[in-house]
Amino acid sequence: MAKRVSIIGSGNWGSAIARNIGQTTLQHKDTFESEVKMWVYEEIVNGEKLSEVINNRHENIKYLPGKKLPENVVAVTDLVEACKDADYLIFVVPHQFVTGLCNQLKGKIKPQAQAVSMIKGLALNDKSKNGIHLISDEIKSILNIRCSVLMGANLAHEVAEDQFCEATIGYSGTDPEEAKTLKKLFHRDFFRITVVKDADTVELCGALKNVVAVAAGISDGLGYGDNTKAAIIRLGLMEITKFVEKFFPPSDLRTFFQSCGVADLVTTCYGGRNRKLGMAFAKSDKDIKTLEKEVLNGQSAQGVYTAEEVAVMLKNTNSENEFPLFIGVDKVCKKEIKPEDLIECLKNHPEHD
Amino acid sequence: MAKRVSIIGSGNWGSAIARNIGQTTLQHKDTFESEVKMWVYEEIVNGEKLSEVINNRHENIKYLPGKKLPENVVAVTDLVEACKDADYLIFVVPHQFVTGLCNQLKGKIKPQAQAVSMIKGLALNDKSKNGIHLISDEIKSILNIRCSVLMGANLAHEVAEDQFCEATIGYSGTDPEEAKTLKKLFHRDFFRITVVKDADTVELCGALKNVVAVAAGISDGLGYGDNTKAAIIRLGLMEITKFVEKFFPPSDLRTFFQSCGVADLVTTCYGGRNRKLGMAFAKSDKDIKTLEKEVLNGQSAQGVYTAEEVAVMLKNTNSENEFPLFIGVDKVCKKEIKPEDLIECLKNHPEHD
Repeated sequence: MAKRVSIIGSGNWGSAIARNIGQTTLQHKDTFESEVKMWVYEEIVNGEKLSEVINNRHENIKYLPGKKLPENVVAVTDLVEACKDADYLIFVVPHQFVTGLCNQLKGKIKPQAQAVSMIKGLALNDKSKNGIHLISDEIKSILNIRCSVLMGANLAHEVAEDQFCEATIGYSGTDPEEAKTLKKLFHRDFFRITVVKDADTVELCGALKNVVAVAAGISDGLGYGDNTKAAIIRLGLMEITKFVEKFFPPSDLRTFFQSCGVADLVTTCYGGRNRKLGMAFAKSDKDIKTLEKEVLNGQSAQGVYTAEEVAVMLKNTNSENEFPLFIGVDKVCKKEIKPEDLIECLKNHPEHD
Repeated sequence: MAKRVSIIGSGNWGSAIARNIGQTTLQHKDTFESEVKMWVYEEIVNGEKLSEVINNRHENIKYLPGKKLPENVVAVTDLVEACKDADYLIFVVPHQFVTGLCNQLKGKIKPQAQAVSMIKGLALNDKSKNGIHLISDEIKSILNIRCSVLMGANLAHEVAEDQFCEATIGYSGTDPEEAKTLKKLFHRDFFRITVVKDADTVELCGALKNVVAVAAGISDGLGYGDNTKAAIIRLGLMEITKFVEKFFPPSDLRTFFQSCGVADLVTTCYGGRNRKLGMAFAKSDKDIKTLEKEVLNGQSAQGVYTAEEVAVMLKNTNSENEFPLFIGVDKVCKKEIKPEDLIECLKNHPEHD
């Protein structure tokens, strides 16, 4: 029987992926119901309700202006109404809203539904013994359903322009047919999907890369050259792999070669707002909060907060010496050491032993 | 007994590494003789012999102006004289000169000497059955000595400024103590060495990255965005790993995470002359030779020629379908397909199956 898909979120990335899902569901009518409900947080934009604009003019004029949404994508402002019949729940909201939304949905969705999280970051509340809590774990634990993830080097506006890119699905189940169905839901001519099994690795790549990007930005801000930046990106990648292998085993080394791994890391370290924040921080005496306002228009630099959460976990497990880059970024951001000293932290990196 | 080290080559990279080797040999007097002979191809610069300038003023005023060379680095213009007593021969010359230099040295070096090649590229003459011939193999086969390699994200002028960076030694032997000695010869506070065993992988990374950089340049020249470039770099990395695993086994996947692998690839795809050439090629109707003159001041874009050699090998082994990026770059450079069609080559990449 054809599966129903609902998208939870309608921001820039949510709207971009809705364009893809609206088309893949039409393309595979035997597999998916054509109607895709998209939960929209209602706002008034230029005197009109955003949900009505989307349903009448098929465009998200606030978050993805100028791009048509497929007509089978239907905006729904009631969260439970949007999700109650869904077989696939696609989460694409800012990470701080996940817990609240899941609590609203608890007991009101199909028991056999499954989730896909496209959210890059870590969950805010710290429940696990290790100190790091994955967003997919948050979704799983509240809704009691499986949760896969989709990550990659995917700037939303480029995806919305059908520019060629890749993404990685970390599939949380064991059924090869179901993995194929999941791939079908996202895979397009210009949006190429690889499915791998170690979902935790995929998700952690998406969160931890931001810490490395802050370090890359600090290096850029200090005027260091290409060699140093390359060393930072590589040592960052080594710390990501080691972190995942140590705290979230088992992990397949090949997953780090996927779009979620090296590709997303590189893109984030050359563009991206975490790198921008790191660069501004190294050049000024201002604190993170001030720079978020001045440089990122009030958006948060997640790498800074992820570094803090990671540092707590590394302290709790006496593993600080194994992760000098992660620890160094946290110390620089807290002004415990100077930006220049970040390089000192890397000179005796365990990777060089 | 302390080992003698000779450097064959005194260009930009040769002079930069001579600064390091001059210091490490002084630092480890028990291990190395302090005097390091550096073979210099004699030139007259501003009316003076380059070798005399180096020996009197300790500066290579033509290829590394403004940087002092350690006084224990001694310029020698006679190749055999420079090398005959050496235990370590460090090759750092343009790849087209390797065969001729080795032929001059044949039978005139210590039988137990060992070489280290710092040359990124493939040997010009094609003797091996596969069609790809490594420079280290050329050195080994002519001189009948072992040859390790050193590769990494190492722009010479940044190394000469003691900016923090990393490099990878691919050690061709089996003796852990000897590997440690080799590391000692290069490892400094700002130049961090990791030693791995699969030397072929290290060397091939150094050569094949240039093909990927041409592709990255084409993408930049066509105005494609960050997602597409990230996909190209990643698919390029996958083709490098597959190429090495298929034609030069065994290969350790972890080696691609070293400075010679992902770090050098990324740096080359964002800066570097192969990327520059690819970008110019995509934007104009001119051919490669013309653009080498106009854009690279007559330097060669090695990625173009490496792509051609690799393509021949892939045709000989019926493996073209497995390497659409390598084949696509060769076809674009030969104007068999348009730059735009490179992306078409990647859409059905075997990595997405």
